[in-house]
Amino acid sequence: MELPESLKFAVTQMTKIPGVGEKTALRQVLTICRWDREQLAALGRSLTALGDLKSCGDCGFYTDETLCQVCAEEKRRNESSICVVESISDFIAIENSNTHKGTYHILGGVLNPLLGVGPDELRIPELITRIKEQQKSEVILAVNPSVEGDATCSYIKQELPEDIRVERIGFGIPMGGSLEYLDALTITKALENRKRLD
Amino acid sequence: MELPESLKFAVTQMTKIPGVGEKTALRQVLTICRWDREQLAALGRSLTALGDLKSCGDCGFYTDETLCQVCAEEKRRNESSICVVESISDFIAIENSNTHKGTYHILGGVLNPLLGVGPDELRIPELITRIKEQQKSEVILAVNPSVEGDATCSYIKQELPEDIRVERIGFGIPMGGSLEYLDALTITKALENRKRLD
Repeated sequence: MELPESLKFAVTQMTKIPGVGEKTALRQVLTICRWDREQLAALGRSLTALGDLKSCGDCGFYTDETLCQVCAEEKRRNESSICVVESISDFIAIENSNTHKGTYHILGGVLNPLLGVGPDELRIPELITRIKEQQKSEVILAVNPSVEGDATCSYIKQELPEDIRVERIGFGIPMGGSLEYLDALTITKALENRKRLD
Repeated sequence: MELPESLKFAVTQMTKIPGVGEKTALRQVLTICRWDREQLAALGRSLTALGDLKSCGDCGFYTDETLCQVCAEEKRRNESSICVVESISDFIAIENSNTHKGTYHILGGVLNPLLGVGPDELRIPELITRIKEQQKSEVILAVNPSVEGDATCSYIKQELPEDIRVERIGFGIPMGGSLEYLDALTITKALENRKRLD
């Protein structure tokens, strides 16, 4: 059946969001149709305003200012340690774990020669310059485990001076995980990364 | 961690959509942040514009005009048959099945005395007037099976003149369903509603 134009337009726009299919979009649009005008306008405005988001000049995270909140408080952070992540979502995940006290650098992906993604397509040159200029002494590569991720880590390591400590986050069994349901590769990694108790 | 204000605002607005939790909202907002300005503005505009949607004066469906597309083409439809549904989504579901050739009437819910939903909270008086005025001879109650749905159907039946044929949609095993996995009540209904083959 033919839906009213405005409904159809909203559904089309919503389905452009990854993970939102036609059915979900229609269900959501039908629900928000019942909202009052102000609520609808607030939602619409909030999404339009995302167009004004800027990238942090240092780490690449989204910000409304020039520097993101983490880089802006660099003075209160451990300036010598930098955590390298693939994406903004990984940045948020690590920051929410409240474990890393240093700063961040978002690569925007991993090296993938087959898809034409080289170091210059990522923020790798900026990373190298930043580490050297800001005299970071510890680089934590929080890049996800994959062939491309491994290659990206090797490349970064090799581009950096020998005296900088480059580390990669640990692989193994996730908390609450069960050996029974884990894949063989994870178990291999977990065995390799075993730690002596004392 | 503290997200930039504009991100936080968009996430808050998105979580107001039923079925969208904080994690989903954040993931979706982070993805659409990468869109260009026009795409974002189109999405925002399309949702804001939903505030201008009107209700069809006859059936209650959303429309950009005075009458919805189904009611506007009433002349080409079977004017004597009217299908009564609870919600707009049910309207769309039935219309998409391409089986009902008459018009519709959306109640906006079912009677629920405990929650203070009486006939006047629903569009029942409008339905009764409409059936009488437009001289409908067949009323199909496509109300979902539930205690409240059953009560709503009885109420409507009782409010209508004796000579109007009032029917309720059939209950039974859904197509592709399997007896093994169906609840006892559905099986009971399916047995009651058995049909002689000839």
